[in-house]
Amino acid sequence: MITIDLNADMGEGFGAYEWGADTKLLDDVTSANIACGFHAGDPHIMRATVASCMAKNVAIGAHPGLPDRLGFGRREMKVTPEEAADFVLYQAGALQAFVRAAGGELSHVKLHGALYHMAAGNDELALSIANAVRSLNPALSIYGLSGSCLHEAANKIGIRFVSEGFADRAYTGDGKLLPRNVPGSVLSDAEAVARQAVSLALAGRCETICLHGDAPYAAEHAKRIAESLRESGVAIHHPTRK
Amino acid sequence: MITIDLNADMGEGFGAYEWGADTKLLDDVTSANIACGFHAGDPHIMRATVASCMAKNVAIGAHPGLPDRLGFGRREMKVTPEEAADFVLYQAGALQAFVRAAGGELSHVKLHGALYHMAAGNDELALSIANAVRSLNPALSIYGLSGSCLHEAANKIGIRFVSEGFADRAYTGDGKLLPRNVPGSVLSDAEAVARQAVSLALAGRCETICLHGDAPYAAEHAKRIAESLRESGVAIHHPTRK
Amino acid sequence: MITIDLNADMGEGFGAYEWGADTKLLDDVTSANIACGFHAGDPHIMRATVASCMAKNVAIGAHPGLPDRLGFGRREMKVTPEEAADFVLYQAGALQAFVRAAGGELSHVKLHGALYHMAAGNDELALSIANAVRSLNPALSIYGLSGSCLHEAANKIGIRFVSEGFADRAYTGDGKLLPRNVPGSVLSDAEAVARQAVSLALAGRCETICLHGDAPYAAEHAKRIAESLRESGVAIHHPTRK
Amino acid sequence: MITIDLNADMGEGFGAYEWGADTKLLDDVTSANIACGFHAGDPHIMRATVASCMAKNVAIGAHPGLPDRLGFGRREMKVTPEEAADFVLYQAGALQAFVRAAGGELSHVKLHGALYHMAAGNDELALSIANAVRSLNPALSIYGLSGSCLHEAANKIGIRFVSEGFADRAYTGDGKLLPRNVPGSVLSDAEAVARQAVSLALAGRCETICLHGDAPYAAEHAKRIAESLRESGVAIHHPTRK
Repeated sequence: MITIDLNADMGEGFGAYEWGADTKLLDDVTSANIACGFHAGDPHIMRATVASCMAKNVAIGAHPGLPDRLGFGRREMKVTPEEAADFVLYQAGALQAFVRAAGGELSHVKLHGALYHMAAGNDELALSIANAVRSLNPALSIYGLSGSCLHEAANKIGIRFVSEGFADRAYTGDGKLLPRNVPGSVLSDAEAVARQAVSLALAGRCETICLHGDAPYAAEHAKRIAESLRESGVAIHHPTRK
Repeated sequence: MITIDLNADMGEGFGAYEWGADTKLLDDVTSANIACGFHAGDPHIMRATVASCMAKNVAIGAHPGLPDRLGFGRREMKVTPEEAADFVLYQAGALQAFVRAAGGELSHVKLHGALYHMAAGNDELALSIANAVRSLNPALSIYGLSGSCLHEAANKIGIRFVSEGFADRAYTGDGKLLPRNVPGSVLSDAEAVARQAVSLALAGRCETICLHGDAPYAAEHAKRIAESLRESGVAIHHPTRK
Repeated sequence: MITIDLNADMGEGFGAYEWGADTKLLDDVTSANIACGFHAGDPHIMRATVASCMAKNVAIGAHPGLPDRLGFGRREMKVTPEEAADFVLYQAGALQAFVRAAGGELSHVKLHGALYHMAAGNDELALSIANAVRSLNPALSIYGLSGSCLHEAANKIGIRFVSEGFADRAYTGDGKLLPRNVPGSVLSDAEAVARQAVSLALAGRCETICLHGDAPYAAEHAKRIAESLRESGVAIHHPTRK
Repeated sequence: MITIDLNADMGEGFGAYEWGADTKLLDDVTSANIACGFHAGDPHIMRATVASCMAKNVAIGAHPGLPDRLGFGRREMKVTPEEAADFVLYQAGALQAFVRAAGGELSHVKLHGALYHMAAGNDELALSIANAVRSLNPALSIYGLSGSCLHEAANKIGIRFVSEGFADRAYTGDGKLLPRNVPGSVLSDAEAVARQAVSLALAGRCETICLHGDAPYAAEHAKRIAESLRESGVAIHHPTRK
């Protein structure tokens, strides 16, 4: 039977600021990527989000970003591979402390924003980050783009890689994401998003599909995706959990 | 035989900024309290300082502070007990990741600056922080003032407490620190500092003595203290390490 | 004819985070207090909010806070009078640059959160801050609580003080705010809020009334207050503008 | 008579951290570029540095940088031209408030680190920043590299540009800076640095020469440069002050 994981970024508020539709997505996803205090999130939101995920049996991953809260970690910064590794180890280590204090175990690491894209396209950066993840816990998996530098780095050092697809983003013929600034690159219709999720799952093009919690109708889309997948015979399941 | 631990705060630079006399004290102390990125320190300095401590077999503790880098964690902020606990777990968890990635193990937690004093005088805050430390690892010990609220909290929840004395601070008759703004409260003469260290050790008034790395002559004082202690028959040794 | 100013805090988002109901209140207030990048706000939001206020002919004030973005400037920090003055001059100076670049002129300064309350109850802090405001521009006015230390400081150094009332907060018999943790201290019913605004205005107990943009129904309350004031013969007008 | 300005970056400490040799250079420079709180500096250091410069009659410029304190503003960040302009207006506006409160007037703006280089090589960014400077005060001048995009932008919008040379950096045959990673690109010998300063001044290749306060021997170099210039008949004078 074909299975797919559904993941969403969570805990991306900060202090008095709220973000996204975190709790509404908890019923539909099987893994959560929790912000760790650099691009978003803070220690209190981390503790609370970990508790919410554990209550719903959602697998918890770290979602580390660049130290650019003002830019929400979305703009590139020229950081060295060693600096990037230190950022990842610091953030994922902090989150792991909250997860273990709550009786859980960190399942994966998914990079955020500009760091996600930088590590996808830069060999040295990818290898340095993959090593940082393994140094935290070799049982962790890394979520990212299939065929990316990070994918290769994970394979090279022997850490589990989980390839990620996007239900709400259009793809080019050769399987790459259409850039956001191209008209039609972001899907907003619930049916189109659900069809794409089913297509990605049936074609085996990814092991996890990313749902965006900050989009309008995030929760409705999530429900429609989950329904469509089940109707198509796809089981929604975390990739490494029993 | 009487033994005493010598501890010093380390890794309190930030980015391009240096602080204190870290590496010079490494030959004389048996435990280091490494800043964790809130009041001082950053992921790169944490990694480097952990490596330096491990190379010298100095026990590594976390030195978490308030989120006030501008004030170097020295001014009080009205934080709730739960907020303080989250700050401590986040910071100590991040540092633990670096220590374990380097093949070591975190030994203790010593609060920094205003947080140190706030937890010494507030029952609820102390208990919340002690629980956070235990939730990270019940084998950790907590360094602090003998008889303080944090001491009581550690005893209450069954986590090892290591009472700390100050070689360069004058004490009142009943064993409390003379406030910094009282003339004569800070000792700066090497012989006076060394005498006080010996006196604290021989009287059994503390298990660890704090050396200040940011003072002028920090390294010279440290050497004089170590010499005087050994001449007085006191062994310098970490309290929980073999 | 009795006149009253209506003010609201604005521009309190940060980076990707939104806050409050800023633009919705612009039609109903006569002065805006714009966050300046310490407790909330950032340079981009400042520029945009200044432009919105100028388009609606709303008087612009600076709304400086403590350097505690995580706590939204709401928790007390032990800062010296000189530090507080520097914080205010820095923030108000930065905002003034945006206002003048847009062809306007800063009208007033209203402190935010914990700093507002600290300056209300501490003579030295109040005097230091009032002097900082005057050093930026002696034509500025200061908004604050009638009879507070900041009021006295402003009078002492000869800078215009505008006393502020709260439509959605209950008062004690002797004219003080009922603390927020007392049941009934925060009014949430539109009619009760409007009645209180009218009562404050008719009794001449304040020159400006604060509307809270972050409350649910903020815009509806603002409209109801403005209507009620006009029905009661009170003109809504900025205190120092022609 | 040939004249040259000597400038140095100042006020680049932060909180408890010190930086460079600020006060030692005050006797030898004619203009200071004061950090404004993003890459370095804070409100208290700004106030104190402004006072020191005014006491020595050193012209004061703003030295705004990227919002990356951890990287000391030295790493590139992908910011838009509008974002960069907002960063500059915010920081220079804040500093201007301190200068005017002290009875002085801001003389110029010199960008810091990565922002300096980004604006030198990007037309759109340069124009946006030059406009921000002019919107603060059209009487300000901009310091930067001769022939850079920022130079062109300043000429285009009619704001005074002051071309800067570096006494301690080697130049290529066509007048560009040899990159820092090329051996021999940074001069450290006092005589070589002084000779280069004289050569730059006599050839009329720049109107101001930058001295680096954070280098070892900064103060000695500065004195040797000033002596050599005077011995060669060059007057040391601020470019726009009487």
